[in-house]
Amino acid sequence: MKVVCSVNPGHCTVISYNFLLLIILQLCLDTVEGVWPLPQTFITSPERYQLKPQSFSFGYRRHLAAQHHCSVLDAAFKRYFSILFPDYASGNDTIRFSENEIFTLTISLDHHDCEGYPNQDSSERYKLNVSAGQASLNAETVWGVLKGLETFSQLVYQDDFGSYYINKTNIEDFPQFQYRGILLDTSRHYLPVQTILKTLDAMAYSKFNVFHWHIVDDPAFPYQSRTFPDLSNKGAFHPMTHIYTQSDVRRVISYARMRGIRVLPEFDSPGHTKSWGKGQPDLLTPCYKGGTPSGTFGPVNPTSPSTYQFMASLFKEVASVFPDTYIHLGGDEVDFYCWRSNPYIRAFMHKMGFGVDFNKLEAFYIEKIVNITSALRKTSIVWQDVFDYHEQHKSLSVVEVWKQGCYLCEVRKVVKAGLRVILASPWYLDQPGPTHNWARYYNVWPLAFKGTEKQKRLVIGGEVCLWGEYVDATNLSPRLWPRASAAAERLWSNERQTSSVDKAFPRLQEFRCKLLRRGIQAEPLDVGHCKHEYQSV
Amino acid sequence: MKVVCSVNPGHCTVISYNFLLLIILQLCLDTVEGVWPLPQTFITSPERYQLKPQSFSFGYRRHLAAQHHCSVLDAAFKRYFSILFPDYASGNDTIRFSENEIFTLTISLDHHDCEGYPNQDSSERYKLNVSAGQASLNAETVWGVLKGLETFSQLVYQDDFGSYYINKTNIEDFPQFQYRGILLDTSRHYLPVQTILKTLDAMAYSKFNVFHWHIVDDPAFPYQSRTFPDLSNKGAFHPMTHIYTQSDVRRVISYARMRGIRVLPEFDSPGHTKSWGKGQPDLLTPCYKGGTPSGTFGPVNPTSPSTYQFMASLFKEVASVFPDTYIHLGGDEVDFYCWRSNPYIRAFMHKMGFGVDFNKLEAFYIEKIVNITSALRKTSIVWQDVFDYHEQHKSLSVVEVWKQGCYLCEVRKVVKAGLRVILASPWYLDQPGPTHNWARYYNVWPLAFKGTEKQKRLVIGGEVCLWGEYVDATNLSPRLWPRASAAAERLWSNERQTSSVDKAFPRLQEFRCKLLRRGIQAEPLDVGHCKHEYQSV
Repeated sequence: MKVVCSVNPGHCTVISYNFLLLIILQLCLDTVEGVWPLPQTFITSPERYQLKPQSFSFGYRRHLAAQHHCSVLDAAFKRYFSILFPDYASGNDTIRFSENEIFTLTISLDHHDCEGYPNQDSSERYKLNVSAGQASLNAETVWGVLKGLETFSQLVYQDDFGSYYINKTNIEDFPQFQYRGILLDTSRHYLPVQTILKTLDAMAYSKFNVFHWHIVDDPAFPYQSRTFPDLSNKGAFHPMTHIYTQSDVRRVISYARMRGIRVLPEFDSPGHTKSWGKGQPDLLTPCYKGGTPSGTFGPVNPTSPSTYQFMASLFKEVASVFPDTYIHLGGDEVDFYCWRSNPYIRAFMHKMGFGVDFNKLEAFYIEKIVNITSALRKTSIVWQDVFDYHEQHKSLSVVEVWKQGCYLCEVRKVVKAGLRVILASPWYLDQPGPTHNWARYYNVWPLAFKGTEKQKRLVIGGEVCLWGEYVDATNLSPRLWPRASAAAERLWSNERQTSSVDKAFPRLQEFRCKLLRRGIQAEPLDVGHCKHEYQSV
Repeated sequence: MKVVCSVNPGHCTVISYNFLLLIILQLCLDTVEGVWPLPQTFITSPERYQLKPQSFSFGYRRHLAAQHHCSVLDAAFKRYFSILFPDYASGNDTIRFSENEIFTLTISLDHHDCEGYPNQDSSERYKLNVSAGQASLNAETVWGVLKGLETFSQLVYQDDFGSYYINKTNIEDFPQFQYRGILLDTSRHYLPVQTILKTLDAMAYSKFNVFHWHIVDDPAFPYQSRTFPDLSNKGAFHPMTHIYTQSDVRRVISYARMRGIRVLPEFDSPGHTKSWGKGQPDLLTPCYKGGTPSGTFGPVNPTSPSTYQFMASLFKEVASVFPDTYIHLGGDEVDFYCWRSNPYIRAFMHKMGFGVDFNKLEAFYIEKIVNITSALRKTSIVWQDVFDYHEQHKSLSVVEVWKQGCYLCEVRKVVKAGLRVILASPWYLDQPGPTHNWARYYNVWPLAFKGTEKQKRLVIGGEVCLWGEYVDATNLSPRLWPRASAAAERLWSNERQTSSVDKAFPRLQEFRCKLLRRGIQAEPLDVGHCKHEYQSV
């Protein structure tokens, strides 16, 4: 006999089967606990099996085991072994891949491609079946297996005596939206690589799959370019300690890949580029006052051929360093004041027939940059400003909606124009709780607008933005977690099964305790406690 | 030639003395950097001396050195040696107490009492004089020496090559207010002892001197009483892992003492006591509904003699465990609903001639508790509610003002009644930044009310309150620091020298970087960077 929900482990003591079932059914009708974000189909029963670290193993299905092992999965087995059995002192040595052990989690996958990177079209589906002495995890790709391993790890619980258990469970799961991102801003404050890696760990626990790296901006240019080293030499907060070397970037990309996470770089232009100008002298527009240069600089100079030569070289490097097929070009908040003050810019406008419409000049610039990145076989993402102010949209592909107000009106406009959308507006988490609490982020439904099925499919996902004005390594984790996890469930799970804040609350509390147990500094949702509190060092 | 301010070390290069002086004077008129909170008198010059960890020593003035060394100061020398020279690998072994070293900081103090505890009347004055090859630090008490050591440590800076320097300096310093507290709430969330100790470290850096330990409340009773062990056995979140043992409490008190910090315990009653009822069955008032007990409980039952027997025993224990001469009795937010519902309470009211004025019942209760603690030679502090709702104030001593609105009107009322005041209202830091930013806490002046000098002297200080609804070990540090430091300067420094937010801003930014360097997770104030960012683990 099965019940369609998970059970709170504490309530499962054997009294009478029917009586127990009644209790469980009552509990379960109100709360579905155990996994965050909630799987699409989740069938569980009170029947439970003990797991012992000494006799637990991960295995490949026989015909796969004969093949070469998959490094992404082998590494994941090691990580999840520690997560499954946190009290078990040693670690890696004890993992055995025999099928004669007492409990084996057996993996099978359709496409045995372990060397590539996750991308926009990667399947993340998986099926997980837990029964006596064994569990099977099937997926189309390694990225699906990683999602299944995360789910499996969340199903395991400890009783008061420290023994590990898992209930009989059957899960079929896939994400509602393909793009589930988190933006970190490493320009307004430098984030040590360790902080980024720790965030990638936590992202995997909530099944986020895109790290949107807003790597440079006005205040600092920490990306160490091999083509233009002066950009960080002169534009970073410090040329040695506050930069991301090529090796740092590779490390981040590799660490993300091992967790099924894409790394989407953003090199925002033509605005938000003050720091670029320090290492690339003729790039920015000189502002004028009273007919002479004032000594200050505005956005990138869109009238100079050298600008596009520079951008082509830079993006050629970026395209080779970052393997993702997407690239974020920014394009937001361009201030026309400086362009307007500059007589050469005005002369160019006249020559091009733009009149006094600086949006046309910006469109001209963006068009050129999009062409540069298209030639590098990258799909470009732009902030909504580019869509809003430009008459022609044919060169655009993906628009990220970020402004407040009726953001779903904007989403509707963009999909009506046939473009894909990433929604960020409701998930600006740099505003701290408790006023901006998790429920605010949970109560969002990106498809709550009038549109055709085809239009709705153009909403490819959403993104949590943690801008850096008031955020650095000291407060990033508690500001992100667990509030970002609320958005994660919205982007992964079936909306009809996850529409109630009240029902979600105890599940999110439990998930937050799991995050603490995994060393993530996730802040509390309300009064209460976790069995294992966060231990500051 | 001296200038009355500190200098930004980076600007001090020897060009021409007069020219340099001009530059420094100009810089200094706008910004006084270097020490937070700002000393009362602070004279510094561009003359600087190199400090080398190998040849730096702390020493006692000769006639003192002959005496027994002072353990509080010996421990402080070790701590501050590491703080002074963070890049210097080894530590304790290298401290030598010879006077033949190249740079010696010599301590002298008037009262060589190292064994006691800081109290409300302890002098914290000190004089610090830094000249070639030596510095002298004079104080009346060891607590004053600790303040001077903190100041000395903030005067030392490193150049770009890692060498350590200090400028010629003359400081005379003392606090504006004697009571400078931080409240932590360990009931709404349990705080690991390590988190409390780390907070005590950070408090010392901002010269806070009272840790107000709101140790128990409705949600949990984590204090492990030796007289009534069931209080935490049944009232804590967990009877083993979420408690403060007697040994934990001793450790906190001892750690605080070594840093010149008093530990003020609060056992709030008669409200805020739900958790007490679990381990002390007859303590709380049974609420009634329709003439019968409803099964729920209200505030402490003020009509039963057993209540006062219990309270006398509990406070006898608390008075012996916590050495401070002050004790906080709470007394806030008593809900009369339950008392009103209970026929026995109503009968008692009638018998006592209280009519239907439950404030009288509460006053009756508080009066008894104050008498119990007075007999134990403790000065009691109560929240403003007790003052507001009671006609007679003769038994009260110190009132803590916490309500929002015109809090200075309340302060004025209390001092007019001849009672001492601690001001907390403007410093409720559980609301997070950036809307509740540091400037909001800096722009407070507790004496900005019409009153006599004598009345103003009754304002003994202020307190930062970090209530625990949404705060635990995961987010406590970035929520406290550096915003609490803004309040610290208000409570320590001369108001006329520290009235400008704009002038304070760069100094606070610099101080925040010092906190990071010392391992305190202090959040950023705005876009920017520190030479040494916080490294998450």
